[in-house]
Amino acid sequence: MIKVSVMYPNEPGARFDHAYYAEKHMPMVKAKMGESCHHYTVDKGLAGGAPGTAPTYVGMCHIFSDSVEAFQAGFGPHAAEILGDIKNYTDLTPVMQISEVVVG
Amino acid sequence: MIKVSVMYPNEPGARFDHAYYAEKHMPMVKAKMGESCHHYTVDKGLAGGAPGTAPTYVGMCHIFSDSVEAFQAGFGPHAAEILGDIKNYTDLTPVMQISEVVVG
Repeated sequence: MIKVSVMYPNEPGARFDHAYYAEKHMPMVKAKMGESCHHYTVDKGLAGGAPGTAPTYVGMCHIFSDSVEAFQAGFGPHAAEILGDIKNYTDLTPVMQISEVVVG
Repeated sequence: MIKVSVMYPNEPGARFDHAYYAEKHMPMVKAKMGESCHHYTVDKGLAGGAPGTAPTYVGMCHIFSDSVEAFQAGFGPHAAEILGDIKNYTDLTPVMQISEVVVG
């Protein structure tokens, strides 16, 4: 199993609509990807590790797929529509990474 | 539910023992924290979002707790021992953040 993490840097003054992200965007991603998205999780950044510090990321999602190929097969055909929806909840550019799920 | 994410930046030349991390360190953390760690996940970075790019983080864990207070109550008494074990698997300094689990 792999996970694709999409992490939005917590930049001062940036816009991020958590409600739209969790209630509209991510369900749309799942609907488009179908079975190739095994499941997904959504995080809302609260704080950094040290007291009084801000979180590194204002929001994150993690999309779980059987393999990189399965993710690409499910995401690729809908990439334009999914990426085109980003402007509806944020003006941030996310950091993405693919990880192996060692303990899931 | 909250999650505490511990993310190790993928710096060239750095040391990170994935086997020790998954098989020794994280089980020790869970054993020390007991019920205050609801569960945890472990990721191994594979790649960045764009083809041919490296992952931002070489490894990550996410520790799930009922609340920030529950995490602190479970982690605090064992912090010295847990943090003292980091040198056994890496010379990296992790980035930490606390997030609300919006979709878990």
